[in-house]
Amino acid sequence: MSSNQIKVELTSAKKQKPDFANLPFGKIFTDHMFVMDYTEGKGWHDARIVPYQPLTLDPAAIVFHYGQTVFEGMKAYLTKENEVLLFRPDQNMKRLNRSNTRICIPQIDEEFALTALKQLVAVDRDWVPNVEGTSLYIRPFIIATEPYLGVAASKNYQFIIIMSPVGNYYAEGINPVKIAVEQQYVRAVKGGTGNAKTAGNYAASLAAQEVAEKSGYSQVLWLDGKENKYIEEVGSMNIFFKINGEVVTPELNGSILEGITRDSVIHLVKHWGLPIVEKRISINEIYKAYQDGLLEEAFGTGTAAVISPVGELYWNDEKLVINGGKIGEVSQKLYNTITGIQRGTVPDPFGWNVKVEDEEIILAI
Amino acid sequence: MSSNQIKVELTSAKKQKPDFANLPFGKIFTDHMFVMDYTEGKGWHDARIVPYQPLTLDPAAIVFHYGQTVFEGMKAYLTKENEVLLFRPDQNMKRLNRSNTRICIPQIDEEFALTALKQLVAVDRDWVPNVEGTSLYIRPFIIATEPYLGVAASKNYQFIIIMSPVGNYYAEGINPVKIAVEQQYVRAVKGGTGNAKTAGNYAASLAAQEVAEKSGYSQVLWLDGKENKYIEEVGSMNIFFKINGEVVTPELNGSILEGITRDSVIHLVKHWGLPIVEKRISINEIYKAYQDGLLEEAFGTGTAAVISPVGELYWNDEKLVINGGKIGEVSQKLYNTITGIQRGTVPDPFGWNVKVEDEEIILAI
Ligand SMILES: Cc1ncc(COP(=O)(O)O)c(C=O)c1O
Ligand SMILES: Cc1ncc(COP(=O)(O)O)c(C=O)c1O
Repeated sequence: MSSNQIKVELTSAKKQKPDFANLPFGKIFTDHMFVMDYTEGKGWHDARIVPYQPLTLDPAAIVFHYGQTVFEGMKAYLTKENEVLLFRPDQNMKRLNRSNTRICIPQIDEEFALTALKQLVAVDRDWVPNVEGTSLYIRPFIIATEPYLGVAASKNYQFIIIMSPVGNYYAEGINPVKIAVEQQYVRAVKGGTGNAKTAGNYAASLAAQEVAEKSGYSQVLWLDGKENKYIEEVGSMNIFFKINGEVVTPELNGSILEGITRDSVIHLVKHWGLPIVEKRISINEIYKAYQDGLLEEAFGTGTAAVISPVGELYWNDEKLVINGGKIGEVSQKLYNTITGIQRGTVPDPFGWNVKVEDEEIILAI
Repeated sequence: MSSNQIKVELTSAKKQKPDFANLPFGKIFTDHMFVMDYTEGKGWHDARIVPYQPLTLDPAAIVFHYGQTVFEGMKAYLTKENEVLLFRPDQNMKRLNRSNTRICIPQIDEEFALTALKQLVAVDRDWVPNVEGTSLYIRPFIIATEPYLGVAASKNYQFIIIMSPVGNYYAEGINPVKIAVEQQYVRAVKGGTGNAKTAGNYAASLAAQEVAEKSGYSQVLWLDGKENKYIEEVGSMNIFFKINGEVVTPELNGSILEGITRDSVIHLVKHWGLPIVEKRISINEIYKAYQDGLLEEAFGTGTAAVISPVGELYWNDEKLVINGGKIGEVSQKLYNTITGIQRGTVPDPFGWNVKVEDEEIILAI
């Protein structure tokens, strides 16, 4: 399929833009959305950009009952030169297809999906906010729409992309967050769906998240489901530590999400010549490093917050205050570099940025 | 709330009834559905019975992205006296609330929900099929409707009940099914959502199910997520074995669903004075019992199939044929007794049946 096979129906009633200096996260949506249908035997068809509108689904649609759905999260940024940049969007489409495999959803054409996404961004270009720290959050997702109450993969799907101009994900912004190590609930286990970006993982996380928030923690740090001992990831971020000069992060073990920010951090740290290792890390090792005064930094990585320094880790009734509760040097440098690349203010050595071209706007309208 | 607070809007165009002698499972829906809304600060409100119709939801509704949803499955049966009976519906409402707790969904008023359900069945009474082996499958479910892309419990929900006249869940009917022991994928783990009836558990199960079906097995038998050793349950059934005269079933350990059919089987077997035990059972124990010639019966229990004898268990490249691939004595007696109680043809010693009264029909219309 080529880009001109995407039908575009523009809205006749553009919404009023919100105050870009005061954006909430994920509550305001742009004027348009992308939709494409899948029908067994026919494949993906009817790609279209339409006014943002409600979905109309049979109450028996499989997504409501058996959670057959996957999603992605990515961002578009406005540069000083008024260009719109996407950060490694090809990686999101790849991961979407990996999630599809796990959840038995048919593969999408990654290249076509990216073209569609770029067209959608071009159509809603004036929704990419121009204020420091803001961006346009993009949410591609696929839902199973067949009305059937048997547990089986759906015969029909919709692939949808919606977009939301966003401010900071955490109220804290780049200020360090407090995170509680979860000791009761489990998010994912080897053989499960932890490395797929699928709804059920997040439903499973809500209860622990609520308990943590009540105690003043913004997220939980998940331990593995088998031994409740090894560090996995944070609610919607991967986790890194700097211990005695070395950057460490949990290895990809099948139950944590392969974060694109995580991968970018690993590339950059290696590029800088700093020691970095992906390995299994127990919470006890972190505690010992802390006691020995060797736990120098901790930070989460994810599209929403990019780099989120961890100022305090709560574990076993103890508060581990990291780097005096302040952002560490490597965390800060990573934040500056990645957000700089994303906004086109620092060089992009790995060719991560993808520009939304003007001709796409022309094509689309 | 009392039953007359449920607004009833009857359809002006009744659907044609399907051939009750040839019903598929979960593909045909009745004329009406029940809907009730939840709004933060206001609670549950606007209970109504309306014509069966599509749901209209914002594409950012939390259910699509974070799977915040729970459901139930139960059945209504028509007796020879033309009465409509529900089987232990109070237990389904209790379990719905337990699932709600795990998934951070507000509690429902169980008694009111049951009243609503009875009214709905009364309104669509002529959809309760009158053919041997058929019933009206009832699917209450709750979905998170708030449009918000942050991972947090929704502020708004819908509680919906839809109904489907059904035939056999398995093509096999009461004939023994073949089940494969799953050795790669995991459905649930302690601390996760395995004991809640929530969408993500089923999404997680699809891949294993597809592999099993390709090899000619109708379901998989899940092992525990921690050690991949202990028997948990089947796709949508709990599992029982009869070993050397004793009935055994996995204990409720937090990662398997507390099946209502399971509970009914335990009650009946005890009532009959047969030895029964709920305990942790490893797949190795089952294999040993099989080798020793002591594995006398195996059967799954669940609302959809009631009792489903297991004729063959596939494990470690070996086919364990149970009771010569035929239904066992206890399995058959349980099937006859439970389906007999459900249809009012054998005594109901535990008071499990709940009659849908005629006055409810009057109230409703
Ligand atoms: C569970 C989980 N882990 C990690 C991440 C970070 O991934 P990425 O860097 O690709 O945004 C996310 C979210 O995006 C997530 O949902
Ligand atoms: C995972 C799972 N286990 C067991 C059961 C059996 O429970 P019940 O007997 O209440 O139908 C079901 C379905 O109903 C189920 O979905």
